[in-house]
Amino acid sequence: MRALYLKDGNLQYLTDYPRPERRAGSSLIKVTVAGICSTDLEIVRGYAGFQGIPGHEFVGIVQESDDDSLVGRRVVGGINIGCGTCRVCLSDGPEHCPERTVLGIINHDGAFAEFLTLADENLIPVPEKIADETAVFTEPLAAALRILDQVRIRPTESIAVVGPGRLGMLIGQVLRLGGSQVTMLGRRSESLALPFSLGLDSGLVAEAKDDSYDIVVEATGNEAGLANSLRLLRPQGILILKSTFAGTANVDLSKIVVSEIRVFGSRCGPFEPALRLLAEDKVEVESMIEGRYPLADGLAAFTHAARIGVRKILLRM
Amino acid sequence: MRALYLKDGNLQYLTDYPRPERRAGSSLIKVTVAGICSTDLEIVRGYAGFQGIPGHEFVGIVQESDDDSLVGRRVVGGINIGCGTCRVCLSDGPEHCPERTVLGIINHDGAFAEFLTLADENLIPVPEKIADETAVFTEPLAAALRILDQVRIRPTESIAVVGPGRLGMLIGQVLRLGGSQVTMLGRRSESLALPFSLGLDSGLVAEAKDDSYDIVVEATGNEAGLANSLRLLRPQGILILKSTFAGTANVDLSKIVVSEIRVFGSRCGPFEPALRLLAEDKVEVESMIEGRYPLADGLAAFTHAARIGVRKILLRM
Repeated sequence: MRALYLKDGNLQYLTDYPRPERRAGSSLIKVTVAGICSTDLEIVRGYAGFQGIPGHEFVGIVQESDDDSLVGRRVVGGINIGCGTCRVCLSDGPEHCPERTVLGIINHDGAFAEFLTLADENLIPVPEKIADETAVFTEPLAAALRILDQVRIRPTESIAVVGPGRLGMLIGQVLRLGGSQVTMLGRRSESLALPFSLGLDSGLVAEAKDDSYDIVVEATGNEAGLANSLRLLRPQGILILKSTFAGTANVDLSKIVVSEIRVFGSRCGPFEPALRLLAEDKVEVESMIEGRYPLADGLAAFTHAARIGVRKILLRM
Repeated sequence: MRALYLKDGNLQYLTDYPRPERRAGSSLIKVTVAGICSTDLEIVRGYAGFQGIPGHEFVGIVQESDDDSLVGRRVVGGINIGCGTCRVCLSDGPEHCPERTVLGIINHDGAFAEFLTLADENLIPVPEKIADETAVFTEPLAAALRILDQVRIRPTESIAVVGPGRLGMLIGQVLRLGGSQVTMLGRRSESLALPFSLGLDSGLVAEAKDDSYDIVVEATGNEAGLANSLRLLRPQGILILKSTFAGTANVDLSKIVVSEIRVFGSRCGPFEPALRLLAEDKVEVESMIEGRYPLADGLAAFTHAARIGVRKILLRM
């Protein structure tokens, strides 16, 4: 089959990659659309030491499955596959299973290919009214919703999202659903056009005041963004780390201790609520699509996605 | 009066420092005993840019006050003095008031002197049965109790305290009161003698397993201790930052995000519960005293306190 294949930091387009073999309890899925996110860019740069087919945001059609009710269904899918038997899997789910594989990230070929396999229990049918190019946002929208799984956010609290990018825009839209005042903060004025077009308050992060927000979501994944996020937080405020950081970074621990900041690492989230929001048009994703590429042009798509300020790049299989 | 005075990184013993002037709403207190903590050592090294008399752990006798009921009473005192009128003061108390002074730390002469002044509302009488050398531990014990103000700790959770030092030993004792399994982890086997003598489990931090604790309290204040603390935490575990970090440090943000670690900066705590625990002998402090110095030998006391592995050093006025 056709696939983007990563080995030793080298991403290639292959036409003869073996079609994945479906194991019992897994389905074979024909990928329709897949999205490129910042984690994919980090993975291609060497993060997580992944080798294989990257890609974890997808929508596709089930081709083969032990579960007849799934065959022919359009699905999205949770990306963490746990062992299913350990204490973590049984109590919390697969997201933190120490033996887990992760679609396109850890020991599991991903979605930048004609076909992928995924555990049946990870698959969620997509309601008909949701278009493919909307459904492909389910995974990152679920990640945005994860914040609400972790932290209580009062409607009276002031929230800043630092980094008005692909993920940041989903986070901003989700957090304002509860009535909170959400401000999208970027480094460049051009990056504020999209938040403005969606009716979200926005501003330059350099102009935002110290100690002025109750909750700050760090969605840049870089050290400067993190430093600004900490700076903006009021004492006892909450910092959500929502971006993939490759390795270590310098952090102002003095502020965290003296101002008793609470920091929450935040990763994968629940798919069902994300699909509900998409079905109800509560979150706008169409204007976030910046480019569409056929899989054969996948390398060009990655180059495009890596440019500063670029929104979502989709691959069509 | 006699005092230890810090200016431009130089700590001096003075005999002719002016006695502090009591303002309306403040009391003049004759200090009986004061304790040297790691924050004092950092302050002398330049942390917080403090100039004046350091010292914030004390017990003393009220000499003068507008409040007659306080005069002659033996007291300890909260170290944060807020403006009393801002939103933070009115809703949360003085600990995070942006205009606050802090005894011996921010714009307020402290306890390493014959006399100090402190706002009346910060003073708490000490029950008779608590000796001076026990009462002087009220402030750090309150800081340890602050953890329970911030985080729910289930009795079934496994807890590690990294850094079996002055503050770490109070934290370990407090956290095991709820029935939790608490392990004190140190870098050197000699540092484990005190935890052992108090019946606390202990071990070498280098030998502690990755991802093995539900909650880790970082009580070393150094980067290596922090790295170990993160390493020990299970996914979705809680890291409490309890030590003063002077400035920035390198932090493994990848672990925080991927394992969804929660980090809580933690500072000052409630005095009344600390006094109750001391009055009920629920926390052992006597064996934590390593040396007693008259104020005139304060510089030697600081040198002693700065040695590796040294426990509490007290100053007697």
